[in-house]
Amino acid sequence: MRHPVLSDQELAALLADDVPCGDLTTDSLRIGARPARLSFCARGPMTVCSVEEAARLFELNGARVRLEARSGESLSFQAPILTVDGSAEVLHRTWKTAQVLVEWASGIASVAAAIVQAAQHKGKRVPVACTRKTVPGTKALSVKAVRCAGATMHRLGLSETLLVFPEHRLYLDESPAVTVARLRAAEPEKKVVVEVGTVDEALAWAQAGAHVVQTEKFPPDRVAECRAALDVRQLPCLLAAAGGVKADNAEAYVAAGADLLVSSAPFSAPPRDVKVQFFGDM
Amino acid sequence: MRHPVLSDQELAALLADDVPCGDLTTDSLRIGARPARLSFCARGPMTVCSVEEAARLFELNGARVRLEARSGESLSFQAPILTVDGSAEVLHRTWKTAQVLVEWASGIASVAAAIVQAAQHKGKRVPVACTRKTVPGTKALSVKAVRCAGATMHRLGLSETLLVFPEHRLYLDESPAVTVARLRAAEPEKKVVVEVGTVDEALAWAQAGAHVVQTEKFPPDRVAECRAALDVRQLPCLLAAAGGVKADNAEAYVAAGADLLVSSAPFSAPPRDVKVQFFGDM
Amino acid sequence: MRHPVLSDQELAALLADDVPCGDLTTDSLRIGARPARLSFCARGPMTVCSVEEAARLFELNGARVRLEARSGESLSFQAPILTVDGSAEVLHRTWKTAQVLVEWASGIASVAAAIVQAAQHKGKRVPVACTRKTVPGTKALSVKAVRCAGATMHRLGLSETLLVFPEHRLYLDESPAVTVARLRAAEPEKKVVVEVGTVDEALAWAQAGAHVVQTEKFPPDRVAECRAALDVRQLPCLLAAAGGVKADNAEAYVAAGADLLVSSAPFSAPPRDVKVQFFGDM
Amino acid sequence: MRHPVLSDQELAALLADDVPCGDLTTDSLRIGARPARLSFCARGPMTVCSVEEAARLFELNGARVRLEARSGESLSFQAPILTVDGSAEVLHRTWKTAQVLVEWASGIASVAAAIVQAAQHKGKRVPVACTRKTVPGTKALSVKAVRCAGATMHRLGLSETLLVFPEHRLYLDESPAVTVARLRAAEPEKKVVVEVGTVDEALAWAQAGAHVVQTEKFPPDRVAECRAALDVRQLPCLLAAAGGVKADNAEAYVAAGADLLVSSAPFSAPPRDVKVQFFGDM
Amino acid sequence: MRHPVLSDQELAALLADDVPCGDLTTDSLRIGARPARLSFCARGPMTVCSVEEAARLFELNGARVRLEARSGESLSFQAPILTVDGSAEVLHRTWKTAQVLVEWASGIASVAAAIVQAAQHKGKRVPVACTRKTVPGTKALSVKAVRCAGATMHRLGLSETLLVFPEHRLYLDESPAVTVARLRAAEPEKKVVVEVGTVDEALAWAQAGAHVVQTEKFPPDRVAECRAALDVRQLPCLLAAAGGVKADNAEAYVAAGADLLVSSAPFSAPPRDVKVQFFGDM
Amino acid sequence: MRHPVLSDQELAALLADDVPCGDLTTDSLRIGARPARLSFCARGPMTVCSVEEAARLFELNGARVRLEARSGESLSFQAPILTVDGSAEVLHRTWKTAQVLVEWASGIASVAAAIVQAAQHKGKRVPVACTRKTVPGTKALSVKAVRCAGATMHRLGLSETLLVFPEHRLYLDESPAVTVARLRAAEPEKKVVVEVGTVDEALAWAQAGAHVVQTEKFPPDRVAECRAALDVRQLPCLLAAAGGVKADNAEAYVAAGADLLVSSAPFSAPPRDVKVQFFGDM
Repeated sequence: MRHPVLSDQELAALLADDVPCGDLTTDSLRIGARPARLSFCARGPMTVCSVEEAARLFELNGARVRLEARSGESLSFQAPILTVDGSAEVLHRTWKTAQVLVEWASGIASVAAAIVQAAQHKGKRVPVACTRKTVPGTKALSVKAVRCAGATMHRLGLSETLLVFPEHRLYLDESPAVTVARLRAAEPEKKVVVEVGTVDEALAWAQAGAHVVQTEKFPPDRVAECRAALDVRQLPCLLAAAGGVKADNAEAYVAAGADLLVSSAPFSAPPRDVKVQFFGDM
Repeated sequence: MRHPVLSDQELAALLADDVPCGDLTTDSLRIGARPARLSFCARGPMTVCSVEEAARLFELNGARVRLEARSGESLSFQAPILTVDGSAEVLHRTWKTAQVLVEWASGIASVAAAIVQAAQHKGKRVPVACTRKTVPGTKALSVKAVRCAGATMHRLGLSETLLVFPEHRLYLDESPAVTVARLRAAEPEKKVVVEVGTVDEALAWAQAGAHVVQTEKFPPDRVAECRAALDVRQLPCLLAAAGGVKADNAEAYVAAGADLLVSSAPFSAPPRDVKVQFFGDM
Repeated sequence: MRHPVLSDQELAALLADDVPCGDLTTDSLRIGARPARLSFCARGPMTVCSVEEAARLFELNGARVRLEARSGESLSFQAPILTVDGSAEVLHRTWKTAQVLVEWASGIASVAAAIVQAAQHKGKRVPVACTRKTVPGTKALSVKAVRCAGATMHRLGLSETLLVFPEHRLYLDESPAVTVARLRAAEPEKKVVVEVGTVDEALAWAQAGAHVVQTEKFPPDRVAECRAALDVRQLPCLLAAAGGVKADNAEAYVAAGADLLVSSAPFSAPPRDVKVQFFGDM
Repeated sequence: MRHPVLSDQELAALLADDVPCGDLTTDSLRIGARPARLSFCARGPMTVCSVEEAARLFELNGARVRLEARSGESLSFQAPILTVDGSAEVLHRTWKTAQVLVEWASGIASVAAAIVQAAQHKGKRVPVACTRKTVPGTKALSVKAVRCAGATMHRLGLSETLLVFPEHRLYLDESPAVTVARLRAAEPEKKVVVEVGTVDEALAWAQAGAHVVQTEKFPPDRVAECRAALDVRQLPCLLAAAGGVKADNAEAYVAAGADLLVSSAPFSAPPRDVKVQFFGDM
Repeated sequence: MRHPVLSDQELAALLADDVPCGDLTTDSLRIGARPARLSFCARGPMTVCSVEEAARLFELNGARVRLEARSGESLSFQAPILTVDGSAEVLHRTWKTAQVLVEWASGIASVAAAIVQAAQHKGKRVPVACTRKTVPGTKALSVKAVRCAGATMHRLGLSETLLVFPEHRLYLDESPAVTVARLRAAEPEKKVVVEVGTVDEALAWAQAGAHVVQTEKFPPDRVAECRAALDVRQLPCLLAAAGGVKADNAEAYVAAGADLLVSSAPFSAPPRDVKVQFFGDM
Repeated sequence: MRHPVLSDQELAALLADDVPCGDLTTDSLRIGARPARLSFCARGPMTVCSVEEAARLFELNGARVRLEARSGESLSFQAPILTVDGSAEVLHRTWKTAQVLVEWASGIASVAAAIVQAAQHKGKRVPVACTRKTVPGTKALSVKAVRCAGATMHRLGLSETLLVFPEHRLYLDESPAVTVARLRAAEPEKKVVVEVGTVDEALAWAQAGAHVVQTEKFPPDRVAECRAALDVRQLPCLLAAAGGVKADNAEAYVAAGADLLVSSAPFSAPPRDVKVQFFGDM
């Protein structure tokens, strides 16, 4: 987590997207050669993320960076993040792209951290897994933000895990037991996860041998029903709550007996504000 | 706007990000060859966006698509968006990536449309320009969403417009009049836009000949002060309000006399829900 | 499996690697405009693979293709694979790249199919999983070849599965039970797989709760020892045999009680010969 | 040969293919920050290759490398290849990709070196040229492996050499003399190479003025016939033997009078084993 | 301007285009390991450009560079540009690509500088803007060459400026005043530029409120007519002369009253010769 | 030559370079949905090139194209090149990029064709080979333009031909005969080409067995001296004239006895004008 997850080429592409041919304002003002300094600090509490990427972006453009925080750290108001020295040309060309990276990734990390923090009840903590519904094209940084906040990824994509949706079951004409047995035989190194829409479905798939049943948009009380139904039959199946899970209902889901919370909420987090200050008298 | 702004290669890359080696669940269930159909429809009112990209993604993977809405259309609850026919393998491999594209872009478009809708007062409408603070790596689609909602882009990047920040002025030792004159001479085909932090600054730069002064995080009453100050002197400078502009305060800024609203709000819009329904009896 | 797993861009890049600026011989001979036809057929029995990619490559260059076999089919000597019509220029520019694709991928598929075929004993069949030790840069096609042969992938990479190597354990100072408990808690949707070097290690990790123990380069008799040790204690842990597994010893490992065979052998398979025949009198 | 022939971007892509989002096992075990060391050494004799690429891959990820062998060196059992220091996170994330690079490229180099070694008879040595039938997508490294073993490339592709196949001649209606004359006139800086299927064809094209005739799958005795036929007529044409040439028949082809051996055998060489050892007490 | 505008990846791609698999001549001669030095100097007066890119290309390949000129400098005959130390292999592999970069970019810069130099009359200087008609695929370097010569870019592309061509007006059925008003309202931060084909058109659009009228292939005397027509009506519209503007007629256009010259001439400048000298006795 | 040598992705990248986010003028004017037509025709005589690429670019953006000329054709004044139908949005977004492609490539092709046409004397024609000094990043199209004009490429790069420069010889301490013998032995399928700076050098290398000697910047009379020196000794070495060869001196070099002309002149050809006409009443 302490290394950039974007390659130099990807960072250069982000900058080129914003500045394909230089900063016209700085160049026209003819101030580019002036030595300059800037600092980033937190405008409010946040779990900061993507500082390594921001730092590398400045360095790739020839500036010198002092990192004062690492991805995953919990920062308070006005905590320093990084300081950069370089020419006015380099700093002006680069700062917004770097700032937006940190603000956006820290938004995700901060919401993810809040859910992790909330995912406990009477001393019991459960893991929080974030879904693959990342903003298109942002997977690598989104995963970093999730992980550095103490959450994990539900699945990175479709190619390496088994999650049976109702949309798959439309094309099956067999009992859950047969389906689970086929999947266990075909992929003995994977767990079989099944998304369910009712308590009865949950029970049926747990009895069929699913390793995990994942409730889709159940309120906490129906999760509690599932929990009870599984427990009374001593089914070893894990119970994952998904759909609408957020920081403000996470504890309720834990209290209801979920073994795992699955959330997409961090991916629509608003950015966390980063204050950028330039110093002119270097 | 009615064509995909992502190339086939970019669409393929988004899908490969999620599905580098096939949908393991569908493949393991051995249901991939079954003919299948799915439809997307709106789960609530939205200005829809990115339907052309979603459709192209399905087509690239061998499915047939009927588009029932175009980017920029205002959809009501349950309005159809598109219908897709293809094998279960193709539909399962592709649907989430396509759904996330539409949900995310429609989130941006819907918030942008709401600001455009709100940017009027007593019959006077002003244009809404969105900033370049897009989520990293999403510029092409973000711009499409902004434009199809009736807004425009403040600037696409640093290379082709003049916007003088206070951070530039730290490195200048001359009067505003000299600065503006230098910029007008160097770039006679561009307008000179200046970000200001106080009413006095606004006035100074307008007097210096700036084409646009852009207030940074002024509440509406201070924008009204600027307006008055400019008007009393008959300065032709346009007044742009930026920083914190949203749908719920847009009218107030128009009422205060802004000629243009500048907003980053659409880029942190929550996704708009798209309902995906599979049909199994094709 | 029945679609190309290389994008049009990747196929074009493979061809450009071989033919950056046209086929000098064909062009210098001035025969390029002549109508031409070629066919691919099997020079020996094979599980064919990559025919969809070969066909797409010809089509991208303007030729017409009739596919006569699909990836995963078992072909006998002289079985037709595909027929292509186009100009002599297109066929000469493209055929070797297409031929090498099919020959190489069919080599992998054929060896993988042979191991799958051999992985049975007295009516008991076990799944065959291939490792991630693919030739550098060939992952997508290698995975296709493995899967179309009826085998599966052990893991696609490091990011989405748990496999504890001895090289990880060098940095742990805790009992296996603690390690397994930590991993199960952190990643409740994954199985915990542990590579072991001795029968005692296998037993220790199975007792600690690993879902799978994977023996590294055990001969079949030592796998049988593991099997017995696990069975006598009724440990539910799966036993995977890895390291040196090939078609000619697969049955012995099944007989020894392996639940799963893990092999890298297909990735060094020699290509299977494809006969290319041109027809000049189109 | 002593520099990496893969760019930083290509190396990063190989690693990302294997590890798109970190090493889940190392991260979940929380051992990533531990200082670590590993070494590569030869598990058997080999002509080693791709050590520069492996070293660069480690360096790109922040580790420090000491190279103890260079591509093209002949290593004996247990000879050291490289040593790497870095965090456990970096070493675990990177080692298999680096190991596979060296093992695979050393396989090619070792077989190529064996053919070069064998391509002599009674003190006469002939050059060995490898074909363009590399594994799809591996051309740069394959060429490096061939060259560092002392062999050369027959042709890098279709665009810069003249090699007339029987498949070209299907579209010609003229004598060999006319064909050769046309090619010599069109491309005076290239040699004209012609693939032949019989001794008579070889003779005909040599008489027509081809610079090189290349026999396709002739056994050594038929190559000897060609040699005799060319020598008796004092034709200056070079005789290249291609098709099935390997280390164990190379001398026979030299003895038969071939001036040049053309082989695809190195590209299906099995990998050479590299032993990787981690050290935990850094 | 003093940093490379091509990324490392782009520089590596340029070199790979020329040298995909090493310098066969140097390698075959077995001289690659010899230490070597080379220098670039000007074969004639030039405004030099792309020296930073050339230097970076050498460095990326492991050589050491001393830069003796910067892009935008005016060099006289035999002025030194850079000196490079490295192995003969690296220098031979890299020099032509580097030389061609400098020669070609200096051609553009030198012609642009000549136009800038000529764009004055009786002490009045006007800015020179170059068009977007760059050689396909060379935009970044072309823009650098233009700017380092003291010229500016007319527009970087179609997405961020307003330039109404006659070809747009074919699809309009409204007065110029309505068109200009619509554009000013839609894009208040942009100037409205209109290309005109006659003096009357120029006048009509200036009266309609265009910020700039751009004459297309007017000789200087017709530009003077426009100037007079605008001046007599005291229209504030800027007058840009485009189409056929070169160093030898630039002054005439300034004398005629143009406020701005628009030229494509630099993009077909012949390369400026750079002398490369190798030193063998390092 | 009759197919695009740029991939769809490369064409899309060229367009995106110019139009990253739509044509702001067309979009702001709200004329994009209007049906439109345009045609390209020759503004003067030219050997046209890159029409297939231009056509493909229009098609990729959804327009329909009728090609009326093919690359390599000799067009007279006002000859039609292509006609395109589509929406005003598509045509306006695409036409300049397409026009510049054809104008620039036709410039190269026309100059190359002129040299080919001139490379004859008293009924003797010699081939014209163009160097690798293409504008950076334009190799594929440059080669197409050269070839469709009837010229050939001297060498595509450094990796597949032998050309011994004086800069190589600085690092050799042996006779020319030894050097040539080593190269012939190492690369028996290549010709040995040697660049020479004096008639004596030419003679020395021809006597040493070089296949081709290439004079660097010899005027025709010194080429004639070489010719005589080679002929009197009956040396079979080919004589290539390079350095400063253009259409207006080509015949003189042929008359002087060159067997081959080598020229970089086409790569600095000015573009050939293509007239683009829009039709509004579709």
